[in-house]
Amino acid sequence: MTQQELMIKMMITAWESQNKRVDGILAKLTDEQMHAETAPNRNTGIYLLGHLTGVSDGMLPLLGLGEKLYPELENVFLTNPDKSDLEKPSLGQLKEYWKAVNTKLAAHFETMSADDWLSRHTAVSEEDFAKEPHRNKLNILISRTIHQGYHLGQLTYLG
Amino acid sequence: MTQQELMIKMMITAWESQNKRVDGILAKLTDEQMHAETAPNRNTGIYLLGHLTGVSDGMLPLLGLGEKLYPELENVFLTNPDKSDLEKPSLGQLKEYWKAVNTKLAAHFETMSADDWLSRHTAVSEEDFAKEPHRNKLNILISRTIHQGYHLGQLTYLG
Repeated sequence: MTQQELMIKMMITAWESQNKRVDGILAKLTDEQMHAETAPNRNTGIYLLGHLTGVSDGMLPLLGLGEKLYPELENVFLTNPDKSDLEKPSLGQLKEYWKAVNTKLAAHFETMSADDWLSRHTAVSEEDFAKEPHRNKLNILISRTIHQGYHLGQLTYLG
Repeated sequence: MTQQELMIKMMITAWESQNKRVDGILAKLTDEQMHAETAPNRNTGIYLLGHLTGVSDGMLPLLGLGEKLYPELENVFLTNPDKSDLEKPSLGQLKEYWKAVNTKLAAHFETMSADDWLSRHTAVSEEDFAKEPHRNKLNILISRTIHQGYHLGQLTYLG
C-alpha cells in the first residue's frame, strides 16, 4: 500500500466510524426519543437524521458518483429548518434512506484510486481547481466526516 | 507539493478550521454563557473548553513533540466529569491555555514532514505499528479533529 492509499484508507475508516456511531444511536434510541429535541428549542433527532442523510446523499453528485437517491431531502432537511411546515418522511423511511445512501457510498469508495480522490469535486471549476488543488474529493470526505461528528455530539444528548 | 503533502495540508487545515470555530465561540459568548450547561444536565461550556484543551495538550506527547504544557487538566477535565468537586481553572486561564497549546502545536506542525506524520504515535508499540501502520501521527490528528467537531456541536448550543 502506498502512503497515499494508507492516508485515504485512514480517512475512509474515520468516515465509517462516524456512520457506525450514528447507527449505534439509531439502534439504541426509541422512536419517541428520536422525535424529541436534542436540547430545548434545538433540532430533533429525526431532523438531524434527515439532515445527515441528505448531506451524505449529496456526496454522490459532488464526488461524481451519480445522482442523489433522495433529492427531496434537500428541501426538508437542508434548505429549511426543523420547524418548517414541510412534511417529513417517517423515521422508518429515514432509517432506510440512511442505510441505502451509506451502502451506495461505501461501494463506490471501494473502487476509487488515490488519483480519483485527489481529483476535483464537481462544485469547483477546472480553472479554480488548477489553482486550489485541495478542493478535491478527499476534502469533501474530510469535511463531511467532521460535519457528522458535529451532529453526533448533539444526537448523543437524546440518550 | 507531493500528493502526501497535499493530503496532510488538507488535514491540518481541517484541524485549524475547527480551532477557529472554537475561537469564534469563545469570542462571542459571555462568561455567564460559558459557565452554563450546553443542555439540561449536560457539560458546561467551561468544562468542554478545559476538556478540548486537555485533549489537545495530550497531543504533544502522543506525537512525540514534548511534554504536556498543563498536565493538571487531565484529572479535572478528562478523568473526572464536570460535576466533580475538583477546582477548575478560571475561564480566563483556560482561554490562555487553549491559545498556548494551539500555538505550540501549530509551530510543530509546520516542521513535520509526510514521513513524520506517517510514523507511529507514542501510544503504540513498534511491534504493533509494524502490523497496523494506520496507527500513526496523522491518525491522531484526524481523530482529534473529529472529536473537536463533536464538542463544537454541543458548544454551539450555548449561543
